[in-house]
Amino acid sequence: MRTFSITRNRDGPILGELVRRYGAAVDAELRRVISDNPLPLYDMLRYHMGWVDENGRPSDAATGKRLRPVLCLVSCEAVGGNVEAALPAAAALELVHNFTLVHDDVMDEDHERRHRRTVWSRWGSAQAINAGDLLYAVAIVSMSHLDQRGVSAENAVKAIRRLEQTCIQVIEGQYLDMEFETRLDVSPDEYLEMISKKSAALISFPMEVGALVGGADEELQLAFAEVGRATGMAFQIRDDILGVWGRQELTGKPVGSDIRRKKKSLPILMTFEAARSSNRAFLRKVYERPGLPCKAVTEILRLMDALEIRKSVEALASKYADAAKSSIQELPVEARAKDELTRLVDFIVSRDS
Amino acid sequence: MRTFSITRNRDGPILGELVRRYGAAVDAELRRVISDNPLPLYDMLRYHMGWVDENGRPSDAATGKRLRPVLCLVSCEAVGGNVEAALPAAAALELVHNFTLVHDDVMDEDHERRHRRTVWSRWGSAQAINAGDLLYAVAIVSMSHLDQRGVSAENAVKAIRRLEQTCIQVIEGQYLDMEFETRLDVSPDEYLEMISKKSAALISFPMEVGALVGGADEELQLAFAEVGRATGMAFQIRDDILGVWGRQELTGKPVGSDIRRKKKSLPILMTFEAARSSNRAFLRKVYERPGLPCKAVTEILRLMDALEIRKSVEALASKYADAAKSSIQELPVEARAKDELTRLVDFIVSRDS
Repeated sequence: MRTFSITRNRDGPILGELVRRYGAAVDAELRRVISDNPLPLYDMLRYHMGWVDENGRPSDAATGKRLRPVLCLVSCEAVGGNVEAALPAAAALELVHNFTLVHDDVMDEDHERRHRRTVWSRWGSAQAINAGDLLYAVAIVSMSHLDQRGVSAENAVKAIRRLEQTCIQVIEGQYLDMEFETRLDVSPDEYLEMISKKSAALISFPMEVGALVGGADEELQLAFAEVGRATGMAFQIRDDILGVWGRQELTGKPVGSDIRRKKKSLPILMTFEAARSSNRAFLRKVYERPGLPCKAVTEILRLMDALEIRKSVEALASKYADAAKSSIQELPVEARAKDELTRLVDFIVSRDS
Repeated sequence: MRTFSITRNRDGPILGELVRRYGAAVDAELRRVISDNPLPLYDMLRYHMGWVDENGRPSDAATGKRLRPVLCLVSCEAVGGNVEAALPAAAALELVHNFTLVHDDVMDEDHERRHRRTVWSRWGSAQAINAGDLLYAVAIVSMSHLDQRGVSAENAVKAIRRLEQTCIQVIEGQYLDMEFETRLDVSPDEYLEMISKKSAALISFPMEVGALVGGADEELQLAFAEVGRATGMAFQIRDDILGVWGRQELTGKPVGSDIRRKKKSLPILMTFEAARSSNRAFLRKVYERPGLPCKAVTEILRLMDALEIRKSVEALASKYADAAKSSIQELPVEARAKDELTRLVDFIVSRDS
């Protein structure tokens, strides 16, 4: 409960409103599926979820935004479905998301997440790989309980199959993301394709599966998936904007953070593309060398200003958000549901953390 | 086809006979679910499966034994089921097994498997973690196709749920195995509990799910699971025997290999337990120090001889094999099926590679 009130304060009115509506039920479901198994392995999961500290003592660390469960449940309700029946799916989505985070942190060697040490940084890579595998397995067990909550077995199998096809997208996206690290010639279009797999798929699927378990027919499931896909693209592009221009006190990361880390996010790829030859040579030189001096960060930020990159990236985020919102208007659902979904998209594209 | 003939020659009459019966269908199913996706990520999977070499060119490297698909399909047929319907499960089992191998190799930093470089050793840990995740996701997609092959959706959901509960066992077992590395006081009983999770669960479940998709009722599914559990224990204990006393030309590993690697397998734990205080102090000293001199390997092997450890370990393997065989006799299945299952257990407990 406590963790949700923290989340609420940070995440603005609409997400807070939806977290107030669904949060406690999602959290209870998550705690139920992770279980109170005394094996210390499960403490790593509880730690990552923000429920306990590094030594297994109860903690009130910030949890994630619970965005994926919320998207699932709001979509389920929008098509007239029963939220209780969708809880195993909502929990599964949060768990799969967290499985990818635990493994990504190992792969990227990131030491910190949500202002705490990452699982591998605390317990070592081997244990973190295993803990991530467990989160994934537990997620699917959760999904497989749908048929015990009134969802038909046919729909439960379909939900699992679509979840796994989504995971395959995410994993392919992660492959591309790592492969991009080794290249200097990644185009913005390639990048957009990568994030459509790595990020947008796991925003799109929650809406699709919410509609599915809520009883929507296949056409409506696909319409929700489409809203989710555009929303997911806007979500990730907003993330990229915050990674370069976000305010440290809100994001927990210094301005230019993604530049400092040489992350090939959309702003930098658009800068490479827009820069004239002399500036492009400078960028190449900086990105080819190990390390990145502070002075170069400032110069790159200045170059981005001169090329109005922020405006271009924001325009692209808005394009996806607008596409999501116009698809929402076409959904055969009640006005109240359209209003909520629209506000959620607006929040996603304007959030500052 | 080719890989199966290689496997056949190595694995003796009964497994060879069953691989001749099922191998081509399993292999076709595996190739179908892994797909011909051109993303290089999929080459890592094809490499690990033994289909291509390190550069993606077709290869005839040794594949695994396909023991889990065989156990699934033979159990399915034993209860009068349709092998075609069980193929998605058989493929899923082989993929899950291989997912655990790819991740275990990263966690254990093993450089070689089946006489070739491990995936992480060729592509790095990050890509190998991701490739393992993909094998896992693809496995579940495969399992989720059961309902498109004539298995009821109810049974398909159950098969997935039981698969994932099995994976949780395997992951808990892997946790314990790694935790044991840090301790000198692991008892043989603790070890047996660990392998019942890490190894036996993924021998037991193939038989259970074979019975399930073959149409057996719950009681019969559990009876198959029980046969599989005892078989799995015998299988792993045999593995431990080969790890210490196996012949290099058959196992590909030198005599005393597990001692050299300080693996806390059953023979060494039983030696710790059986040794009198002076010898135990010697063992502790050897296991506490970094490295392990050749002389110590020889001394430990001599101590094992003196304590007749091999006889004790073989007796335990036989105990489990006998339990499996007497459970097989009680199964309400045809004599021919009993005979095949019994021969399979005999092969498992006496194999020399």
